Amino acid sequence: MPKPIVLLSFVLAAAPSFAGEGKWTPEQVLLQGPAWVKAQGFTLPLERLWNAKTKTGLLANAVQLPGCSGSFISKTGLLITNHHCVVGVLQEHSSPEKNLVAVGFLARTQADEKRAAAFRVQVPVAFRDVTKEVQAAVPAGADDLTRFRAVEATQKQLVADCEKKPRTRCQFAAFDGGLFFTLTEFHELTDLRLVWAPPTMVGDYGGETDNWSWPRHTGDFSMLRAYEDGKPYTPPVYFPVSTEGVKPGSPVAVLGYPGVSYRAWLAAEMAERRERYFPAIEALTTEWIRIVEDEGAKDPKALIAAADDLRTLLNRRKNAQGQVAGLERGKILDKQRAAEADVLAFAQKRELAAAIGAHAELTKLVQEKLATWDRDFLLDVVAWGPLPLSWATTLARRATEAQKPDLEREPGFMERDLGRLRDRLDREQKSLHVGLERRLITSWVIRALALPKDQRLAPVDALFAGLKDDAAIAAKVDGLLKASPVLELEARRALFDATPEAHRARKDPLLDLGAALDAERKALKDRRDRWNGAFYRLRPEWRRAVIAHAGKPVAPDANSTLRVTFGKVSGYAPKDGVTFLPQTTLAGMVAKHTGKDPFDAPAAVLAAAQKRATTRFADKALGDVPIDFLSDCDTTGGNSGSPTIDGQGRLVGVNFDRVWENVANDFGYNPAVARNVNADVRYALWLLEQVEGANDLLKELGASQ
Amino acid sequence: MPKPIVLLSFVLAAAPSFAGEGKWTPEQVLLQGPAWVKAQGFTLPLERLWNAKTKTGLLANAVQLPGCSGSFISKTGLLITNHHCVVGVLQEHSSPEKNLVAVGFLARTQADEKRAAAFRVQVPVAFRDVTKEVQAAVPAGADDLTRFRAVEATQKQLVADCEKKPRTRCQFAAFDGGLFFTLTEFHELTDLRLVWAPPTMVGDYGGETDNWSWPRHTGDFSMLRAYEDGKPYTPPVYFPVSTEGVKPGSPVAVLGYPGVSYRAWLAAEMAERRERYFPAIEALTTEWIRIVEDEGAKDPKALIAAADDLRTLLNRRKNAQGQVAGLERGKILDKQRAAEADVLAFAQKRELAAAIGAHAELTKLVQEKLATWDRDFLLDVVAWGPLPLSWATTLARRATEAQKPDLEREPGFMERDLGRLRDRLDREQKSLHVGLERRLITSWVIRALALPKDQRLAPVDALFAGLKDDAAIAAKVDGLLKASPVLELEARRALFDATPEAHRARKDPLLDLGAALDAERKALKDRRDRWNGAFYRLRPEWRRAVIAHAGKPVAPDANSTLRVTFGKVSGYAPKDGVTFLPQTTLAGMVAKHTGKDPFDAPAAVLAAAQKRATTRFADKALGDVPIDFLSDCDTTGGNSGSPTIDGQGRLVGVNFDRVWENVANDFGYNPAVARNVNADVRYALWLLEQVEGANDLLKELGASQ
Repeated sequence: MPKPIVLLSFVLAAAPSFAGEGKWTPEQVLLQGPAWVKAQGFTLPLERLWNAKTKTGLLANAVQLPGCSGSFISKTGLLITNHHCVVGVLQEHSSPEKNLVAVGFLARTQADEKRAAAFRVQVPVAFRDVTKEVQAAVPAGADDLTRFRAVEATQKQLVADCEKKPRTRCQFAAFDGGLFFTLTEFHELTDLRLVWAPPTMVGDYGGETDNWSWPRHTGDFSMLRAYEDGKPYTPPVYFPVSTEGVKPGSPVAVLGYPGVSYRAWLAAEMAERRERYFPAIEALTTEWIRIVEDEGAKDPKALIAAADDLRTLLNRRKNAQGQVAGLERGKILDKQRAAEADVLAFAQKRELAAAIGAHAELTKLVQEKLATWDRDFLLDVVAWGPLPLSWATTLARRATEAQKPDLEREPGFMERDLGRLRDRLDREQKSLHVGLERRLITSWVIRALALPKDQRLAPVDALFAGLKDDAAIAAKVDGLLKASPVLELEARRALFDATPEAHRARKDPLLDLGAALDAERKALKDRRDRWNGAFYRLRPEWRRAVIAHAGKPVAPDANSTLRVTFGKVSGYAPKDGVTFLPQTTLAGMVAKHTGKDPFDAPAAVLAAAQKRATTRFADKALGDVPIDFLSDCDTTGGNSGSPTIDGQGRLVGVNFDRVWENVANDFGYNPAVARNVNADVRYALWLLEQVEGANDLLKELGASQ
Repeated sequence: MPKPIVLLSFVLAAAPSFAGEGKWTPEQVLLQGPAWVKAQGFTLPLERLWNAKTKTGLLANAVQLPGCSGSFISKTGLLITNHHCVVGVLQEHSSPEKNLVAVGFLARTQADEKRAAAFRVQVPVAFRDVTKEVQAAVPAGADDLTRFRAVEATQKQLVADCEKKPRTRCQFAAFDGGLFFTLTEFHELTDLRLVWAPPTMVGDYGGETDNWSWPRHTGDFSMLRAYEDGKPYTPPVYFPVSTEGVKPGSPVAVLGYPGVSYRAWLAAEMAERRERYFPAIEALTTEWIRIVEDEGAKDPKALIAAADDLRTLLNRRKNAQGQVAGLERGKILDKQRAAEADVLAFAQKRELAAAIGAHAELTKLVQEKLATWDRDFLLDVVAWGPLPLSWATTLARRATEAQKPDLEREPGFMERDLGRLRDRLDREQKSLHVGLERRLITSWVIRALALPKDQRLAPVDALFAGLKDDAAIAAKVDGLLKASPVLELEARRALFDATPEAHRARKDPLLDLGAALDAERKALKDRRDRWNGAFYRLRPEWRRAVIAHAGKPVAPDANSTLRVTFGKVSGYAPKDGVTFLPQTTLAGMVAKHTGKDPFDAPAAVLAAAQKRATTRFADKALGDVPIDFLSDCDTTGGNSGSPTIDGQGRLVGVNFDRVWENVANDFGYNPAVARNVNADVRYALWLLEQVEGANDLLKELGASQ
């Protein structure tokens, strides 16, 4: 890289900043200083939040779960997260006779806890800025692909060195396209056991009807216990549970692992999402939801198998619709264009030629992507679409990567990844329903056969050549699935460790299609590696100009690393004439009850709710037990299950959603509607006491009477 | 009648009362006294509201329109009401080329005003309590039918005497089933001309989507001018238009002619509505809406013809749904049962045997009604259902009633009624679409053929005997309509003045069916007359006990007589976590605009809205032009177009709806959700100034700059 990267986002930390916007790294919080933290309403000493020397503190009590966040709430390894983060675990222990997803689960003793297979938790233990190592590894004058490969090689080496410690996972991360890089060391826990999950009509009360919306009445909680060497794990730090709770205006912070956001993107890049990506996702998920519901109506087994996937599809669609609506409402593209014009003018004045050039080149890269957009979209869908296609392509990639030395393999297929990958392929078996998959694959193939002339997928064209209509395609797909070893758990396990030659020797059409599609996907990855190499070169130039123009700290985009966001409990105005209050209550939950899914509250909860005003978990001001609350913390996907703590570092809630108007906050922050949704921990305590009678658990939480 | 009726509701007028609940008669307002009126926030002298001697005042500036209310707002006969009260007038002057409903209308000079044919307005000029005359007319020991007929004969005589004055209409009314009776004398105006109606996408912005709901952004205004002897009419009193408007908490009053409410009914009578009537209305309107929309999709002419009827059907359905939901939400039946139990206990203690007996007998009458419920419902539907059935039965009744001396005829068919009746039958011709009517009649016939064995309608059974399926029934109906003179305007006019013999001589199957159904309807009326005679005997006994138990004034149920309700501008909480603010603004209207019906705001309004914050009609606190506001006035159907006035007697809005949660207020008042919806007069003024440039009109209203 030509110039040393100056970490302006750190250097400018003394400038003023405000709660709400910003997913801050723990280091940034430290650099903001004690006055800033106090101004956010956090009264406890800064070093308790984050100790500069030990690089740990309360902020490190956000652990990483598969796709979610969580936190410890007892010294004996009790961990709280969302109900929707453990649906897979509940399914794993369910049968048609006893559906734990529906009825919930409570372990009255440690012996009753249910082991969550293939469920891992990472506890962060060390953080390191590795920007200099990365920069040093890139040869002078490297082209974009070489640059990308050099960064990737460094990443692998850093991770490999870091993971030499036992029970350790390490995470390399690039911030804002390479402005700086970090390495996080996690202590990995693999023995997790389910302690409590409420019935689905508490944990997912309101279901898709209420999803992404407000007012909510969802008890989206669950509790697991971590074990190590057969004994409850002792976390380095845990949040005491608050029985006092929050009120409107209370300061709070949300900690966790937000997955991805795009605020550092150019307007032209955002436009591709607005115009192409989100509409395509909406169309595809709409069709697939219809297929799943249709098959589910015919066969209850299909519905059970696809429960998780259906939830994902519905969520993906609602998200896409919300992104489009939010981008429009917030005029986010217009604002980004105007902001870019300001930065460009600033760059002209300061003669920042590199920034101006980077902006032009980044804009050009968008055009290059659009040329193969439809084809690339369908290739991407393979990874999260029909299981047989996903499995077949994954097996193919695994087989080719296995031929290489470990450090040369693609991330995700290195030795360190194989345990997880095997777990996933095993776990997904419970979601297989052949009739359903046949229809989903047929839908995908029909889309592939409709691609523009210059974007054809040759393997699909070849395999389905000459088929007259959809019925013929479906029959062909049926043939693909009928006898394929890919669909058999044991056979798939064997294929996982077989060579490409062995795969070819099976002469299995599905395996062959997987290999051919994987080759296409690999070619796409190569193009993307080159683009990413260009981003490493260009985006930091542009971001440095943006940050210099801002003249104050700028939080980097989410990238699955540990972040904290500060905010206040606060309602909002969703539209003219309407105010949303920041808290909901049991009375509102009861009022929503219709006796029909998704508003079919359990009889025991309804019965207990009759005495709601008089239990000790009732909020004085509300005169009722609180259920959910809004705050203006800056969250996104991956923050599910994140602890919400008060100014004294006590757990007051568990983050589980954003409101509909705030979905597009991934592209830009709109303080008027930036609200995350938290389940109030007092509702969990009330459920445990008044419905479950879980006195031992309350005692462990220090919340018994 | 055995005992003299003591008008307790008048006698107890000194007891305290509160704004909100109560549709008061002007006399009751007077009796509440100046302190009470002042406590409602009305600072102007009581005698300006209502003068005891002249029996007139500002409260009399609520005029009666067909199905609506209105008020004068200039000394030159300008009258304001709702847009939805003049849709018929707009249709009358519309053609496929120029649809005034869609584009609206403004007369820039008096010469441009459009005459509203068959549109009459009644201005109240005198009020009289006639209870003693009515009581005196009932023979001692009369049975129920005799009692009813005696009251009816007195009614006719009183009205006939009263209407000897030229241009006079008189209205006889029973309060709470005969607790007291009044006679109101109206000056009748027959020359009404349309001055202004905004486009439907202002006057009905939000359409059915927003109907009965909040927040609203509807400019549901229209203006007419009354003429007499070819000159603008000079009203005895008019409301000056306020340019200051209202704010949250402002005292307001709504004046008008609320049609009917049922708060004096027993719980058992309310249960018949809850269990039978509203569900039946919902089912029938749902089917008919589907039919109208289906025919409309095939033929735009059907949609134009049925525009009014479709609106009525949609409104009727949403109302029925809201009534059921509101009865449930307010637990109104439970509350009424509990209240009755209290009154019964009170009656036991005071030894009010007549009240206790009346309660028992009223409860028994409900059972009698249920025995023929399905059949009676279908016979009632004939009056507002398919036009050919309504016309044929009306012609039959007209022919038989014409044989009697005028004072013995049924109300509605007396000489005084014939002008209106002719007008209606003429006016309805524009709503005729034979293809649509064929399907609606077929639907009605299929329902009649499915009646229980002991409730059959013989004429329908006879006419449609032996028809195998719905298609055969539809074909038969088609034959009925094909050549019937009933459907031809001129022929129908001739039949209106023909004898029953002349009708029979036509040997027209539709006329014959009309005569046969009319005979069934007449028999039903006879039964109802007897029931009503029983009500005259029983309900006052019961209500006297209710009022004595209450120990304070009780406003009588709505009965289309002049009432006033006092309230305040105020929002409400529709559900847990949500607050509705009491005012909406242009910004909210613009935010709702989608470019598609029902949110397709006219371009001129959108353009003008850009400068919304800076025009003189912008509300300082809102920073925008207000559109609609909520108040807790106690309104119902018939209050459409009612003037909403401030504490100084100035027009601040026009009532046009109730909120969804408040639809069941016809059965019981729930202060938490009792909100009526008013169009803010400042929106009308802003439209006239900024969009229409109607400077002369603004000048006439005293609102020019």
